[in-house]
Amino acid sequence: MNWLIENGTFLTQDPERPVVRGWLAVRGDRIAGLGEGEAPQDVRSVARERVDGKDLLFLPGLVNTHGHAAMTLLRGYADDLKLQEWLNHYIWPMEARLTDDDVYWGTLLAAAEMIRTGTTAFADMYFFMDRAAEAVETSGMRASLCRGIIGLGSEAEWREKVADGIRFAREWHGKADGRIRAMLGPHAPYTCPPPVLEKVIEAAHELGLPIHIHMSETAAEVEQNVRDYGVRPAEHLDRVGVFTRPTLLAHAVHLTDGEIALLAERGAAVSHNPVSNLKLASGIARVPDMLRAGVTVTLGTDSVASNNNLDLFEEIKLTAMLHKGVTGDPTVLPAGQVLRMATVDGARVLGMEDTGMLKEGWKADLIALRMDRTHFVPRTDFVSHAVYAACGADVEHVWVDGRQLMRGRELLTLDEERIRHEVQHRFERLLRG
Amino acid sequence: MNWLIENGTFLTQDPERPVVRGWLAVRGDRIAGLGEGEAPQDVRSVARERVDGKDLLFLPGLVNTHGHAAMTLLRGYADDLKLQEWLNHYIWPMEARLTDDDVYWGTLLAAAEMIRTGTTAFADMYFFMDRAAEAVETSGMRASLCRGIIGLGSEAEWREKVADGIRFAREWHGKADGRIRAMLGPHAPYTCPPPVLEKVIEAAHELGLPIHIHMSETAAEVEQNVRDYGVRPAEHLDRVGVFTRPTLLAHAVHLTDGEIALLAERGAAVSHNPVSNLKLASGIARVPDMLRAGVTVTLGTDSVASNNNLDLFEEIKLTAMLHKGVTGDPTVLPAGQVLRMATVDGARVLGMEDTGMLKEGWKADLIALRMDRTHFVPRTDFVSHAVYAACGADVEHVWVDGRQLMRGRELLTLDEERIRHEVQHRFERLLRG
Repeated sequence: MNWLIENGTFLTQDPERPVVRGWLAVRGDRIAGLGEGEAPQDVRSVARERVDGKDLLFLPGLVNTHGHAAMTLLRGYADDLKLQEWLNHYIWPMEARLTDDDVYWGTLLAAAEMIRTGTTAFADMYFFMDRAAEAVETSGMRASLCRGIIGLGSEAEWREKVADGIRFAREWHGKADGRIRAMLGPHAPYTCPPPVLEKVIEAAHELGLPIHIHMSETAAEVEQNVRDYGVRPAEHLDRVGVFTRPTLLAHAVHLTDGEIALLAERGAAVSHNPVSNLKLASGIARVPDMLRAGVTVTLGTDSVASNNNLDLFEEIKLTAMLHKGVTGDPTVLPAGQVLRMATVDGARVLGMEDTGMLKEGWKADLIALRMDRTHFVPRTDFVSHAVYAACGADVEHVWVDGRQLMRGRELLTLDEERIRHEVQHRFERLLRG
Repeated sequence: MNWLIENGTFLTQDPERPVVRGWLAVRGDRIAGLGEGEAPQDVRSVARERVDGKDLLFLPGLVNTHGHAAMTLLRGYADDLKLQEWLNHYIWPMEARLTDDDVYWGTLLAAAEMIRTGTTAFADMYFFMDRAAEAVETSGMRASLCRGIIGLGSEAEWREKVADGIRFAREWHGKADGRIRAMLGPHAPYTCPPPVLEKVIEAAHELGLPIHIHMSETAAEVEQNVRDYGVRPAEHLDRVGVFTRPTLLAHAVHLTDGEIALLAERGAAVSHNPVSNLKLASGIARVPDMLRAGVTVTLGTDSVASNNNLDLFEEIKLTAMLHKGVTGDPTVLPAGQVLRMATVDGARVLGMEDTGMLKEGWKADLIALRMDRTHFVPRTDFVSHAVYAACGADVEHVWVDGRQLMRGRELLTLDEERIRHEVQHRFERLLRG
């Protein structure tokens, strides 16, 4: 179907024309054209639906490159605790009780929350991933999914998990009209000994898929890596061969100059999760140094259990502020750069082709923010407003693959009240043990 | 007039009973009572209006202890710049063109934005303060206002500014049914030489008013203080006698252990402005150390020009996260403590009696958050949700002094569309020069 936005302001993320004030036409799942001023007559005549873009600011949909969606089930359940206490006494016992239905409903809740706050694509690493994939399919979102593989058990155990990760990737990659992509997801160097990683790498080559892995989230795990393997995690992963595949590293908080240079050389990308890293007291990633070295850095929320929401606008503003404060240089991470990290760079790192830019021929994944709001006055620099003044609640409409998922704050693909009820009910069951 | 909230959940900030699930009654400007379960018959019979508290979470109104309200006029005008370039080429030239009407409308816009995001009381340091006070009176908010005094000109110049600050305080302290309070506002040690401070201190004693001053926001100004006076700012202000009055220090980013001990001993309080401090690359205040030493720390947004909004929920979440990340200890600044900083502690520091707690006999300054939202599911710990998951857009109702200022997201005291139009128009005039 053809539809048309008229009279809108578009922050395209296309370096050739960053701001367009005019029209954008969609045919099927792609942007058929955009231009300044009024849409040409031939475009208008074929548009079966028109959106009045007055007072709306259009951006490519945000891309959340790291999380564990179903953990919405544990929002607010445990905060302000030491990491080991948090994991041992709260998170892991609850996760041990999760059913595949819990993962389905928890992922649906995450999808509802992400759509509401302008995220159109996300990466997810968890378990019972078939049900997570079903939730993505239902929601209409785009996602890159992987079965998280913890390789600490017996060989039989980890081989089964690796096999399940491979099976999941084979079954789901390219499904839902291509909106679902798969990665392979070995959890982390400290939970996946080299034989596990080697098996995963082999499969990733066979399937032509990228690898999504946590790395150097805490100082303690870096020390352990040095004790166990004599080198820090980046060099360790390089030796084992992980970087022979496109790799997305979640967190990457504790890196040396040498590790940053290595990631740049190997083309490994990073998902920066500043809210989670601060809240869990993991530390502050060296984002300006990574960017300077040429590492692609993108943004992620991590799970709701360490955030405690999925509003990527918070990560956007925090990323733009935090590294100024830490480096003492107010010119690092300017607003426009952070917006690219949260859109086009995120999509590229998740292997989503032609996604994350408002440009002819690219995927029609876009969001509209209401600009007739008191906190957007005066109308000065729209990039600044989107990064420093906006929040997820400013998102009015959301489209993915040309299909509208939210219209005027109303979700069109999800029964939000039912989802909220299910998650509440399931949380109470989990709590009873 | 008497009115009553029934069936609500109240985060009182009263240590004796932090959470009440039941009712809260208001008589005139004060809370007449609150209790668990159903309201007693005698309370219900005199209530002329009832509010259904179902799915609402009630908190004392938030208190923003440092800002320059009228600078909403410069939102998004200049970001991501070196401090001196930002001030010299952008902020100061625009401020030089501001009229008293601009300050009136800019302050109204700030008030509208603060009410929308749950702030009921704020501190403001600027110029043309009579017009700012008029805006506060119109808005129905509570505020502690001071004329900012920059004492760098000739003696005649600074004496005139000090005299204006004193005149303003005499005229406005206690006005608007006591909702407006005054402070004296020498801008900073580096802009107010000792003779200026001495004159201000003398007046503060005469008028019985507190002092509001910037201190140690940047490392450069601390160095300058040491060059000029041989000591760091806290010791300097102590020697000059500032701390003989109750004092509110904005920022206090760069402090030694000795300075922290001195502030604790003198009872000087701090307004922590983490968003502004990060965005301007000023640094990160030693909040956990200050709290441990017994310094009262409260929260402020600073001006919109370095933020770029007035949603104090951002400062609340950032404060709870940032110091965990910086200290490596996830147990510092737990959610409940930060909520007290943003409510009862803020009110006390601004000299607002019986404000900031939901308790019989205290001022009826309160806000209600809608809890039937996807990002508040599951219902676990409401304090955690208010700190880590909420944003200003979740605020549904606002009352100050028992009077409703926002009902169902609609402002009742301010013509928001007119204010937006005026500010836009005035910004465009300022831009033309």
